[in-house]
Amino acid sequence: MESTQLVMLAGRLAASEISAEEFLRLAAVEVGQPEIATVDLGRAQRCGFPEVIYGSGKTATAILQIAGQLLESQQPVLVTRLDAAKAAQVLQQHPSAHYSEVGRTLRIDPSESRPAGVGHVAVITAGTSDLPVAEEARATLAWMGVRATMVHDVGVAGPHRLPERLAEFAEADAVVVVAGMEGALPSVVGGYVPCPVFAVPTSVGYGASLGGLSALLALLNSCASNVAVVNIDAGFKAGYLAGLVATRRQG
Amino acid sequence: MESTQLVMLAGRLAASEISAEEFLRLAAVEVGQPEIATVDLGRAQRCGFPEVIYGSGKTATAILQIAGQLLESQQPVLVTRLDAAKAAQVLQQHPSAHYSEVGRTLRIDPSESRPAGVGHVAVITAGTSDLPVAEEARATLAWMGVRATMVHDVGVAGPHRLPERLAEFAEADAVVVVAGMEGALPSVVGGYVPCPVFAVPTSVGYGASLGGLSALLALLNSCASNVAVVNIDAGFKAGYLAGLVATRRQG
Amino acid sequence: MESTQLVMLAGRLAASEISAEEFLRLAAVEVGQPEIATVDLGRAQRCGFPEVIYGSGKTATAILQIAGQLLESQQPVLVTRLDAAKAAQVLQQHPSAHYSEVGRTLRIDPSESRPAGVGHVAVITAGTSDLPVAEEARATLAWMGVRATMVHDVGVAGPHRLPERLAEFAEADAVVVVAGMEGALPSVVGGYVPCPVFAVPTSVGYGASLGGLSALLALLNSCASNVAVVNIDAGFKAGYLAGLVATRRQG
Amino acid sequence: MESTQLVMLAGRLAASEISAEEFLRLAAVEVGQPEIATVDLGRAQRCGFPEVIYGSGKTATAILQIAGQLLESQQPVLVTRLDAAKAAQVLQQHPSAHYSEVGRTLRIDPSESRPAGVGHVAVITAGTSDLPVAEEARATLAWMGVRATMVHDVGVAGPHRLPERLAEFAEADAVVVVAGMEGALPSVVGGYVPCPVFAVPTSVGYGASLGGLSALLALLNSCASNVAVVNIDAGFKAGYLAGLVATRRQG
Amino acid sequence: MESTQLVMLAGRLAASEISAEEFLRLAAVEVGQPEIATVDLGRAQRCGFPEVIYGSGKTATAILQIAGQLLESQQPVLVTRLDAAKAAQVLQQHPSAHYSEVGRTLRIDPSESRPAGVGHVAVITAGTSDLPVAEEARATLAWMGVRATMVHDVGVAGPHRLPERLAEFAEADAVVVVAGMEGALPSVVGGYVPCPVFAVPTSVGYGASLGGLSALLALLNSCASNVAVVNIDAGFKAGYLAGLVATRRQG
Amino acid sequence: MESTQLVMLAGRLAASEISAEEFLRLAAVEVGQPEIATVDLGRAQRCGFPEVIYGSGKTATAILQIAGQLLESQQPVLVTRLDAAKAAQVLQQHPSAHYSEVGRTLRIDPSESRPAGVGHVAVITAGTSDLPVAEEARATLAWMGVRATMVHDVGVAGPHRLPERLAEFAEADAVVVVAGMEGALPSVVGGYVPCPVFAVPTSVGYGASLGGLSALLALLNSCASNVAVVNIDAGFKAGYLAGLVATRRQG
Amino acid sequence: MESTQLVMLAGRLAASEISAEEFLRLAAVEVGQPEIATVDLGRAQRCGFPEVIYGSGKTATAILQIAGQLLESQQPVLVTRLDAAKAAQVLQQHPSAHYSEVGRTLRIDPSESRPAGVGHVAVITAGTSDLPVAEEARATLAWMGVRATMVHDVGVAGPHRLPERLAEFAEADAVVVVAGMEGALPSVVGGYVPCPVFAVPTSVGYGASLGGLSALLALLNSCASNVAVVNIDAGFKAGYLAGLVATRRQG
Amino acid sequence: MESTQLVMLAGRLAASEISAEEFLRLAAVEVGQPEIATVDLGRAQRCGFPEVIYGSGKTATAILQIAGQLLESQQPVLVTRLDAAKAAQVLQQHPSAHYSEVGRTLRIDPSESRPAGVGHVAVITAGTSDLPVAEEARATLAWMGVRATMVHDVGVAGPHRLPERLAEFAEADAVVVVAGMEGALPSVVGGYVPCPVFAVPTSVGYGASLGGLSALLALLNSCASNVAVVNIDAGFKAGYLAGLVATRRQG
Repeated sequence: MESTQLVMLAGRLAASEISAEEFLRLAAVEVGQPEIATVDLGRAQRCGFPEVIYGSGKTATAILQIAGQLLESQQPVLVTRLDAAKAAQVLQQHPSAHYSEVGRTLRIDPSESRPAGVGHVAVITAGTSDLPVAEEARATLAWMGVRATMVHDVGVAGPHRLPERLAEFAEADAVVVVAGMEGALPSVVGGYVPCPVFAVPTSVGYGASLGGLSALLALLNSCASNVAVVNIDAGFKAGYLAGLVATRRQG
Repeated sequence: MESTQLVMLAGRLAASEISAEEFLRLAAVEVGQPEIATVDLGRAQRCGFPEVIYGSGKTATAILQIAGQLLESQQPVLVTRLDAAKAAQVLQQHPSAHYSEVGRTLRIDPSESRPAGVGHVAVITAGTSDLPVAEEARATLAWMGVRATMVHDVGVAGPHRLPERLAEFAEADAVVVVAGMEGALPSVVGGYVPCPVFAVPTSVGYGASLGGLSALLALLNSCASNVAVVNIDAGFKAGYLAGLVATRRQG
Repeated sequence: MESTQLVMLAGRLAASEISAEEFLRLAAVEVGQPEIATVDLGRAQRCGFPEVIYGSGKTATAILQIAGQLLESQQPVLVTRLDAAKAAQVLQQHPSAHYSEVGRTLRIDPSESRPAGVGHVAVITAGTSDLPVAEEARATLAWMGVRATMVHDVGVAGPHRLPERLAEFAEADAVVVVAGMEGALPSVVGGYVPCPVFAVPTSVGYGASLGGLSALLALLNSCASNVAVVNIDAGFKAGYLAGLVATRRQG
Repeated sequence: MESTQLVMLAGRLAASEISAEEFLRLAAVEVGQPEIATVDLGRAQRCGFPEVIYGSGKTATAILQIAGQLLESQQPVLVTRLDAAKAAQVLQQHPSAHYSEVGRTLRIDPSESRPAGVGHVAVITAGTSDLPVAEEARATLAWMGVRATMVHDVGVAGPHRLPERLAEFAEADAVVVVAGMEGALPSVVGGYVPCPVFAVPTSVGYGASLGGLSALLALLNSCASNVAVVNIDAGFKAGYLAGLVATRRQG
Repeated sequence: MESTQLVMLAGRLAASEISAEEFLRLAAVEVGQPEIATVDLGRAQRCGFPEVIYGSGKTATAILQIAGQLLESQQPVLVTRLDAAKAAQVLQQHPSAHYSEVGRTLRIDPSESRPAGVGHVAVITAGTSDLPVAEEARATLAWMGVRATMVHDVGVAGPHRLPERLAEFAEADAVVVVAGMEGALPSVVGGYVPCPVFAVPTSVGYGASLGGLSALLALLNSCASNVAVVNIDAGFKAGYLAGLVATRRQG
Repeated sequence: MESTQLVMLAGRLAASEISAEEFLRLAAVEVGQPEIATVDLGRAQRCGFPEVIYGSGKTATAILQIAGQLLESQQPVLVTRLDAAKAAQVLQQHPSAHYSEVGRTLRIDPSESRPAGVGHVAVITAGTSDLPVAEEARATLAWMGVRATMVHDVGVAGPHRLPERLAEFAEADAVVVVAGMEGALPSVVGGYVPCPVFAVPTSVGYGASLGGLSALLALLNSCASNVAVVNIDAGFKAGYLAGLVATRRQG
Repeated sequence: MESTQLVMLAGRLAASEISAEEFLRLAAVEVGQPEIATVDLGRAQRCGFPEVIYGSGKTATAILQIAGQLLESQQPVLVTRLDAAKAAQVLQQHPSAHYSEVGRTLRIDPSESRPAGVGHVAVITAGTSDLPVAEEARATLAWMGVRATMVHDVGVAGPHRLPERLAEFAEADAVVVVAGMEGALPSVVGGYVPCPVFAVPTSVGYGASLGGLSALLALLNSCASNVAVVNIDAGFKAGYLAGLVATRRQG
Repeated sequence: MESTQLVMLAGRLAASEISAEEFLRLAAVEVGQPEIATVDLGRAQRCGFPEVIYGSGKTATAILQIAGQLLESQQPVLVTRLDAAKAAQVLQQHPSAHYSEVGRTLRIDPSESRPAGVGHVAVITAGTSDLPVAEEARATLAWMGVRATMVHDVGVAGPHRLPERLAEFAEADAVVVVAGMEGALPSVVGGYVPCPVFAVPTSVGYGASLGGLSALLALLNSCASNVAVVNIDAGFKAGYLAGLVATRRQG
């Protein structure tokens, strides 16, 4: 069926219905090739950090192409929401890449000499079901070159556990709290630290958890003044915001 | 206009369209008299406690009439959601009544000899805006003859405050937690006590509090196993349930 | 791919980016082994009953490991939301375990000498679709050592059926009502009993049942004073709360 | 300011921007006169019953004008959602009108010789807060010439009360159930009667009643096969539907 | 694994934890046999029509067993929400059964001599996607012995089509309108007929159709006085209600 | 209290905390003067029509100031959501202004010589409660110099009325349909005309109308291909879009 | 099983339960044949463009049959929501058809001589995930004979990109903006162009995107006056409306 | 009525039902005195900034009392959500206080020597209706000693305005964007700056703005990585978070 489409596209090109550039892009789509992506290489200059590749819905070939352009200009690569099958294809070409199956993230450094960690961000979770989102935040911080501390299993229903581990995050520049179920943890953490807390509601739960909406609403109503909220399961965004705070402080 | 209506009602009675009983009830409505209420005096026998009068939407006259019937059969009276104006009218006839303007509740004991408090229920709040709901719960417990302890100002954003006051409620038969904002407090309390926790979301808040719906959803997703939920602002229901637990234990 | 990850982890350990403990935990995750779980063995002491294992999302190996620790300290095991495949693996090692395929629960007693049932809780359902949630509540009560009575098929649209079976639950310490469709049953039951009623809305239904949300909202507005609500399908939580009431009365 | 507007309107008429008819209608609006309403006098012929006047947002003058046209062609008048002040104005001109302050309805018969009641509809409520909606249904049935029986105070939390009064509605052609709070009553009633049940959710309640939405959702999920639903507080619609069933049976 | 469970059940029976009846029921569940269903054979007497079998979630064996009991007492059988695989099993034993794959309904008459159709109900749809729900309504009417007329393809966006077919339903006792998309059809139909209209919103659609919720809300706000609403996709309920109206008129 | 604030502002200006421009703006706010508005006089050039003044929340003085700037550059003025009190103040200075109390709009032409109407837009409503929104649309069209035809009282429950008036809008360039209640009218209209239909849901209704949300959702699911939707009560936006279509056609 | 059903259908025909026409239609359904579709061939006359075939839920055979009727009367064919498997079947019979796998649309022209493009519509997207919806809009415009310009990758978070490409769409007759995520793009585009903007929210996203509902709500609140909204993912409807504007201007 | 209550309270104190402390607190409530508030004077030490007084629902007396305690320990005072009447009472005692009627905030510095502004936060709004929320953010920053720049009137529908003013906020440590209507502005701003953006949805709007919920949902789906969200109208929280970032950078 492709040849029919190609003939049609050529006809539209001939009839000036589409530009040559458009023809090339669409022809690639029709024959199943990855879209020729435009990478915003100036983003690191403008915004402090390079463009991030959202892996969901992209082919491994497309990801490799974008990653190649970033690495060529010496920019570190971060791919989020990347399943294991596609990651395997990327790892074949970039064996030094760091892939986390739990967090579905992949990082490639332009050279082996990674910068020492600057700043300090704590990533805190209540239970094991929050781990994937926390891992996405940690991988983001690693890509930004920020030191991250993971504090797990400090749910509010075991209220003695959080204070015991206070030393691990009391001095952080910013804190990411991954908040499943009733979304109570960020408020409690917010009462212990003097820095911004970026709360991520998670979609894990059942019944009236409404896919994370209940936790999201609870977080927005947090009684702690230093709690900001990002989208449900948005581990990357929380990690990125915390990383911005940590790196600016050092800048 | 009333006479017209009465004539019409009489006509319908004459035409057997309505029964005599129906005629009397409707006639009373049309001439602005309180509806002749039917009190379920057997309820204390069946359910352990007498019928409660929901004050909202009832006239002072109607409330006095129902209260009179209960007191005649030596049953204690509890009126909820009663504003100050109507309460004043009731207090004129029952000067020994206990009215709480904060909780909008009124109690009348059939005789001055109140039973000593049985059982023990703690009512816990995070801040001053939760007070009216907590007062409604306390008045309900007082009416049931249950000893109630109030623990105020222990919000989760001041995380050191709750453990300091643990002694006041660690031994309670049941706990009522009034939960505004993000609804985090009941989960934290639930981790400290081995008894049932009845959580009441409150409608106080702004923006995404959605009139208490956000707190309600959070509470339903509590990670603590011993947390049950009642309707938004339903201080009476939480107090009643906690009181049932406290009195049964003694029974 | 794992070796790459392990090398990376080792590098982070060497660079003091992560602690040795963290290294071990993450290494286990990367090589596909069950997470080394931390069991809260002091919970029975603090809260009256041991920690419960939420089976969904845990591997059989992880469940066996946690169960082993609980049994070693002579604590009874309850696993909820456990599918048949994983249960089979657990039963191979613990042939005396009680698994209910309907309720997806599994119990293991530390020794064969189970305590006689204390207290009495009735679990009431309207129809067969509510059975799985009711079974989860019953298994929870069995694990707590509480006697449970099941009352099935008493939906409100067959209004003569409930009074006929009143004798089976009139004397219960607490009642669990599993409430599908319009969520009417708990209010009717609440009018017959003087004890707390814990209502569980179920997600069974179609169209405007909204995955149980309609039943949940109806229950929160129950006109019966003694009805508390838990999350949709939360049979465990309702059973646990009812069990707390039943055992405290005996305590 | 009106004269300015009138001049402007006249200018638009002169410029053929608006038609003469349009000019008259708008002029009336600008000078505060009631809109000249078009009454659909053929509706009784087409649909069996005349047009009904929705009083909310109409002036007394407009209502009188429409009513006059209906009465001239010997059609009975029903006005719904009519407050007492406007009703007083209507009663001055039609002293034989029937106004119910509770139900906010007003009826005027074209002549004093009302037809005897045909058919039989029961209107059932749980408590006093449902009365206004029930009254609107009853007035509608009276206007249709249908005999209506009112059955009050049979809420599901007093489960013995409904069967006691079964005789009053077991033989009805159709039943209207006004359903506040958890919306349980129609399902229970539906199990007792072999005729259609028209359920009206009410907006009375607090907290998670969501202005009647909770009751509405519960009713839509009724386990009784013979329960249909109308809009929140739509007493008129439920009464009208029940009346259609009752009169067709006789037709 | 079953034998372990059976031993356990026997143990509970021996320990009087469960009754013999309970033992039998649970044993059947554990070994995969259909639950021993209790059929309400008196329902036809009380409510005018026999119990209906909701096929979803029941095994073919269970359905055959219930159907058998109904047929023995000469009651017609209706099964709804029955997929083709289970229907094939039922048809093997009851080759004269009527199965509609489109509507997923199955009917079995106790004897071949079916009663002639009484009354008349029109079932109206806008497009082909509404067909399954309409078929469920029609099968229900056939089972009740009511004559049904199907009127398809009369959507409001082709406004000339409905009046052309008015003759087919103008004289019906009741009308069922299956209403997808914006739910406009019942209001238009309601303006043409003097009888009750039972509107069924359907879950077909995309985007902001919200699984039928948008159509449901639109129907509840219908400007036609004679439109009642049932649950999304509830073809059975609409058919049943319309059938009740049609048969009562003849009764 | 103002002088304190002014002193403070002056101090902040002195301390270079705020710019002089900022000082002036804030000083004006503090002393209760209208904010000095910045009018985008280039908008007519860029977008075809001048800036519109949203009257809600602006003082009459502010409105007069903005209007003055527009008139100076010979641009016609449209104020929406303007209540009668503020309109009276504007009319005192601009006696030739056109104010519609029903639509809450006010227009001022820069000179008396208004352009003849270009294009043709029909504004269609079902009932009187939709009138204010329709008037806002009409005033917008008048301000754009587009001829508007009003077609009232053609609700879908009186299905014979719409075809009778087809001639009035069959040739329009675009149609605005104001859609209360179930939002059915635009779909029906869309089936009669070959041009774009801009549908405006209205907030009028009760119960499950949800402030217009039900009508909005219905409109988004319209089965007519030529129906676009704007916000609830957004008569201005629908009129503006229809006017853009009508004037472009002539351009 | 079919023969049983056919016999039954024949019986119903014989008993005059169904008409001969109904018999034929149902017989076709029962034996698995495509429904005999009625094509509205007069639609092009009435509405300017022919009927469009909604492919989802139709068999290839049914689609071919409808397409055949349209082509016979020299009307161009557009099929939307057509998956690749069914498209392949259609292409076998119509090798000159244009199928877009990305947009899931298929077009067949009655003859090879396509009209030159009239008017001009720009279709603008922010990112690659919006492509399928944009393609559906483009195919619709191609079918209408309207020239379409695609402007991709101009998301608001890269705010310099949109102005750079302004020349491509500044002169369009109408603009379609496909708006994922926060739905901000149409407002920005609306500020650059003087023509109507038809915004299509997309269902792509995660967490609080609520299947496109968040983008939809944002679009309805657009601060740009020239933005109208269609249903989520409704690329066809937006393209059709824009095409109507573009072709009318030329008419 | 108070004396009755006091006698009752005294009785409860005598009966050891309440503690002396509880007695004092409740007695104060009953006689209408402001609650004796407990100020958390250690908060500045723990969290970097003192406790903030939420003015809504507190009496002027209570506010003065808390403010007095803070000032005594040399801590600056911030009161939010304070209406003008109560502010006047506070200003009488603290004439040097800074009250903003627009933002409803009041600040009192412990001494006249305010610290010079540290850090830099930009507060950006689209239009005048967002001003009150922006003012609350600015007052918060002033109280924290952070320099704030206000950038008004840069809505996305006037897309040329934002880049023109880029110089004012390109170098900020953090940005607060107040986002009414469709919530598009923060995404656009986020693309221009390399620092964290704290977005505040506002409740201003009509129709489908749902009291700010639509803007909130849009913000959560922002395509810009550096956008975090706070509750609707939560100007204080956004200002506080931005201030934390700005002051930590300097720390």
